Amino acid sequence: MNRKGILVVVSGFSGVGKGTLMKLLTERYGHYALSISATTRTPREGEVDGREYFFKSRDEFETLIAEDRLIEYAEYCGNYYGTPRDYVEDQMEQGRDVVLEIEIQGALKVKQKYPETLLLFVMPPDAETLASRLRGRGSETEDVIHSRLARAVQEAEGVEQYDYMIINDVLDESVEKLHYLIESQHYKINRNLDFIEQIRSEVRVFAKGE
Amino acid sequence: MNRKGILVVVSGFSGVGKGTLMKLLTERYGHYALSISATTRTPREGEVDGREYFFKSRDEFETLIAEDRLIEYAEYCGNYYGTPRDYVEDQMEQGRDVVLEIEIQGALKVKQKYPETLLLFVMPPDAETLASRLRGRGSETEDVIHSRLARAVQEAEGVEQYDYMIINDVLDESVEKLHYLIESQHYKINRNLDFIEQIRSEVRVFAKGE
Repeated sequence: MNRKGILVVVSGFSGVGKGTLMKLLTERYGHYALSISATTRTPREGEVDGREYFFKSRDEFETLIAEDRLIEYAEYCGNYYGTPRDYVEDQMEQGRDVVLEIEIQGALKVKQKYPETLLLFVMPPDAETLASRLRGRGSETEDVIHSRLARAVQEAEGVEQYDYMIINDVLDESVEKLHYLIESQHYKINRNLDFIEQIRSEVRVFAKGE
Repeated sequence: MNRKGILVVVSGFSGVGKGTLMKLLTERYGHYALSISATTRTPREGEVDGREYFFKSRDEFETLIAEDRLIEYAEYCGNYYGTPRDYVEDQMEQGRDVVLEIEIQGALKVKQKYPETLLLFVMPPDAETLASRLRGRGSETEDVIHSRLARAVQEAEGVEQYDYMIINDVLDESVEKLHYLIESQHYKINRNLDFIEQIRSEVRVFAKGE
């Protein structure tokens, strides 16, 4: 069967635990690759080029844009962030399923370029859980908490164009579900028509009496 | 989330092990129901009405057809076989995922009536495995074997309209894969838009400052 890598976008409300889910996914199963973003922002203490980010100058980044070498990009707080096409395609060619954590607007751009992309949205089990995570450790002002909550409401705009949701309730089970959801996509009929046709023609040879 | 039952059709080459797969699936996980067909054929020794089949007279069966109480039906060797709508819908209402084993032409009729039906096709790992299973225990004539193989080639006509395939290689793993494939469908976004909207509006209340 066809084991070419699948492109997976994971989105979801802030504070829902996407990062932890994806970290565990790659640690537990060997064939996933997290996409590494390119950015023009300054590296922080301890960040390594090619590990946390591909660090680029503004000129370099704009060249990437001009040469269509980013799957998607956005400007945020005066810095560019984007997903390098080469890295993603190399990993997929090597049979790795590539997981991208981006918000919905970026995800829909990716889906336009790669229609087979799997779009997943991570949900909290209930609103209280999300609110208490956004509330953090009690050090934030009520204003900060309310603006986080208001932003969370907006973060689901466009979710009806996604393929699946995952409820992040029991972390261990959520990672397994995430894995099985992605794994299932390898069994889509339209990814495996060649395999099916091959078996049929081999059976045809047997039927004609070897 | 939405746990209403899903309708699943399992098809595949004769001899590929569909029956065993489905038996293990229902034994291992509690929430599956195998659909029971209605038929006009005479019960065999030991067959119980409502267990192997719903046994019907020709008149009764034709009334079922006339009243649109069958999801699909076909005539085969002078007898009717069909899938009763009531049984399937009752099971789904109770939250059971209903599994139907029928061939592709029937499956496509089911999909027309229930567009959310999941269509699965079971594949052998390779042609040799299928051929040796169809060859049976060596008691059949070469003619019988060749006609079985020729029929197998036809049995995949229309498979490109299916959703997923499953390779029945290691039985234990195939059952698990089958389960996860079906389970994944409960997480489809379009089945869960109400749940997502509910969480969003609850978060909205929190954002407005409880």
